[in-house]
Amino acid sequence: MFYSENGNGLNLMTMDAEQLRENAHKMVDVIADYYKNIESFPVLSQVEPGYLQKLIPDSAPVQPESLQSVLQDIETKILPGVTHWQSPNFFAYFPINGSIAGFLGEMLSAGINMMGISWITSPAATELEMIVLDWLANLLKLPNDFLSKGPGGGVIQGTASEAVLVVLLAARDRILREIGKDALGKLVVYGSDQTHSCFEKACQIVGIRPENLRLLRTETCNEYALSPESLADAISHDIATGLIPFFLCATVGTTSSTAVDPLHALGKIIKRYRIWFHVDAAYAGSACICPEYRHHLNGIEEADSFNMNCHKWFLTNFDCSALWIKDRNALIQSLSTNPEYLKNKASQGRTVIDYKDWEIPLGRRFRSLKLWMVLRLYGVEKLQSYIRNHIKLAQQFEDLVAQDTRFEIVATRTFSLVCFRLLPPNKNEEYANKLNSDLLDAVNSSGKIFISHTVLSGNYILRFVVGAPLTEERHIVAAWKLFQEASSSLLENS
Amino acid sequence: MFYSENGNGLNLMTMDAEQLRENAHKMVDVIADYYKNIESFPVLSQVEPGYLQKLIPDSAPVQPESLQSVLQDIETKILPGVTHWQSPNFFAYFPINGSIAGFLGEMLSAGINMMGISWITSPAATELEMIVLDWLANLLKLPNDFLSKGPGGGVIQGTASEAVLVVLLAARDRILREIGKDALGKLVVYGSDQTHSCFEKACQIVGIRPENLRLLRTETCNEYALSPESLADAISHDIATGLIPFFLCATVGTTSSTAVDPLHALGKIIKRYRIWFHVDAAYAGSACICPEYRHHLNGIEEADSFNMNCHKWFLTNFDCSALWIKDRNALIQSLSTNPEYLKNKASQGRTVIDYKDWEIPLGRRFRSLKLWMVLRLYGVEKLQSYIRNHIKLAQQFEDLVAQDTRFEIVATRTFSLVCFRLLPPNKNEEYANKLNSDLLDAVNSSGKIFISHTVLSGNYILRFVVGAPLTEERHIVAAWKLFQEASSSLLENS
Repeated sequence: MFYSENGNGLNLMTMDAEQLRENAHKMVDVIADYYKNIESFPVLSQVEPGYLQKLIPDSAPVQPESLQSVLQDIETKILPGVTHWQSPNFFAYFPINGSIAGFLGEMLSAGINMMGISWITSPAATELEMIVLDWLANLLKLPNDFLSKGPGGGVIQGTASEAVLVVLLAARDRILREIGKDALGKLVVYGSDQTHSCFEKACQIVGIRPENLRLLRTETCNEYALSPESLADAISHDIATGLIPFFLCATVGTTSSTAVDPLHALGKIIKRYRIWFHVDAAYAGSACICPEYRHHLNGIEEADSFNMNCHKWFLTNFDCSALWIKDRNALIQSLSTNPEYLKNKASQGRTVIDYKDWEIPLGRRFRSLKLWMVLRLYGVEKLQSYIRNHIKLAQQFEDLVAQDTRFEIVATRTFSLVCFRLLPPNKNEEYANKLNSDLLDAVNSSGKIFISHTVLSGNYILRFVVGAPLTEERHIVAAWKLFQEASSSLLENS
Repeated sequence: MFYSENGNGLNLMTMDAEQLRENAHKMVDVIADYYKNIESFPVLSQVEPGYLQKLIPDSAPVQPESLQSVLQDIETKILPGVTHWQSPNFFAYFPINGSIAGFLGEMLSAGINMMGISWITSPAATELEMIVLDWLANLLKLPNDFLSKGPGGGVIQGTASEAVLVVLLAARDRILREIGKDALGKLVVYGSDQTHSCFEKACQIVGIRPENLRLLRTETCNEYALSPESLADAISHDIATGLIPFFLCATVGTTSSTAVDPLHALGKIIKRYRIWFHVDAAYAGSACICPEYRHHLNGIEEADSFNMNCHKWFLTNFDCSALWIKDRNALIQSLSTNPEYLKNKASQGRTVIDYKDWEIPLGRRFRSLKLWMVLRLYGVEKLQSYIRNHIKLAQQFEDLVAQDTRFEIVATRTFSLVCFRLLPPNKNEEYANKLNSDLLDAVNSSGKIFISHTVLSGNYILRFVVGAPLTEERHIVAAWKLFQEASSSLLENS
């Protein structure tokens, strides 16, 4: 194979330094132009289901096509079907942060394209991950038990779903080793009705009975935080009926309203039992690098494991979910494999960490690279300013909502999420839900912003999350204007 | 935040089109230079455990550092700790393919940095994945039941470990829905002693008893393939003792020796029972796009699920593990969640696929982009030539080994893996194992090539896999010369 000089690019080699250079420079410009024009796209894709099938051939080409024609298709066929998570007008769900530093790290990792299965398969990947997660643990002021120097340590998982799954598994096996496998049906787990759905999914996977999943009811008066009393009551009741409590998932920053479960009080209760205490701070963990928000992690000393998604609000391109545990052996006992074809002296000598034994997948990318680059290229102070700026913008939005008496703020804003709704003149709750759902549809179908919703205490609530790297005050102001106009129009027509 | 013109790069913004352009162009050159110089690095990193801790500060910097200083550290501190999977002299494990097309796809996916959780969160991501996996299914001549038009379909998982886990879960829940959860302890799974270790791990995760995992013994005379007779016997025996067979994992291209389990014969046996039949072709599946290798998939009609890693030998940068199933509802029943905050009209109307319900993680990258680009930028014929070239090179290596009477080829080469060993003059088996282990250490510590090993029938065996995109005939010849020299030296000193 050789490179065609006529520029049609049809003789792309599988790998070649100069062809990679030439074509990757083109792709850089495509991506930079994407960011230059990002505000011109509808934030939420407006295509209909099945749109792409009509635009793309039924089969792969026999002969190569040119990069030019692929790039044209990306512009005309793919981008219309993309919902732009990096748009400054993306306020839905929780953010997925991309940044220049994170992107450079992804590029390098994809370029080197190596496996961090075992230490030997790329020592730098394992060692940098240990070091950088120690850095981040220190920024969060996590207890020393979570550092890699002792029996604990950090590991990058793909998502919070995988993080809670692996610790649940470690906890399940730890208790079953003591009391026997037949007790699986008696194991009980605890969370709140605000705990992320990945917890229920993890329970299903590891075989916890659905009837033994306690998603304890939260109350408006408690700001939707898990009540220590209800946890204590549930545990006592379960023990009395012969069940075996063994896992608690608390949340710092729930998905619906960023409620913060009281870690310290919860930790005190479960201390009396042998319950694995996992803390999910997937979104809000990032804020805790700022001293003024660190108190939300008070009580983390009691936890067995802690998770924060650097790909959410910490400028690290997806995926990068940081998980720390106090007892890495519990994980390893559940997840290690030792086939002959992966044996090597470093692993057999137990002088190294093999991250394959800390996670579900065997293969793993060099994900610490991008986190390391984010931390170094921005530095701690800029990362703190970044978080504070988003929280300030959310506060501005909240102030705008509060000034309009047609609206209600339905949960105290703790971080960068504002939960609010439009109140109908007639105060009919059923109608209120319909009205807010219509308002969501109206703003989202405009293509100007994208928000999502939740239900709290039976009410349909709008969620407005500030967290995209490009979001500035002008975007907040314009978004609010859009809400006001759409609301006026809906109320007029009702 | 503004951009510093003085070039120290210390005011890198979180995101900005022009800064991204400038810095990403620099990174392209770093990566292109990496490929230009890739043969100058020791293939297997020669660092000692803990090397990086001594080179990197204890904490994250408070102030930003320059890209220049990060890039210097990558050159001087990170690269020495990297094992170069893209080196043309990497012959260990199975390959992890990177290519120009795959890299461009990774860049674009990392650049757009969106989530394909549900259809609505980026319709193009879901729809392109469906289409491209249909393309690939057609290239592999998979039965129509695996196409997305019917009740089946394809999905990109991260790894083969995740692929087997999700189908095992679907199979577990399907049978437990019928016979009740209390029967979990009676469920039996089947594979061979050559089945990849991820199968055992998946069983452990979903709660299959270790004593109910049948890894049936394979024999040299069968080329280490699973014997249909031994499967039939095991199933009969298990049923007779009151156990419940429910899952078979067959392999096309085992890790140790690329053995091919006889799918058709195995399928006929399990047809009499309600056993989920999964086929793991993680490595060898790629070869089956060539008509002359397609027969290894004969019998795939009987399978319920099929998996092939495009990131192994199909030029698609890690990660991209293609999984097809006949009954997607079985997966969805095990893995779906439906929290309020993710509800949307498209999902509720059941007019779309939400891939979050086909996998463990919630978040997911736009991975179909790179596979689409690989298929389009290379085209089917070039992909077939790529596979054939590697197999031809492996054959050349095999011929070289066969010409040297000091060596033995220990398993028939089917694809691009050659299994061989050096025979000691005294024929002592224990000494033979030591000798080959020493030979492996000698070639790997030279830094010139990297190979790995396995054990077959109690013998320590060297595995030489051709599969890196840059490997040419000269690398094969040089590798063989290295083996010969190292062997002569070992035999002289013994």
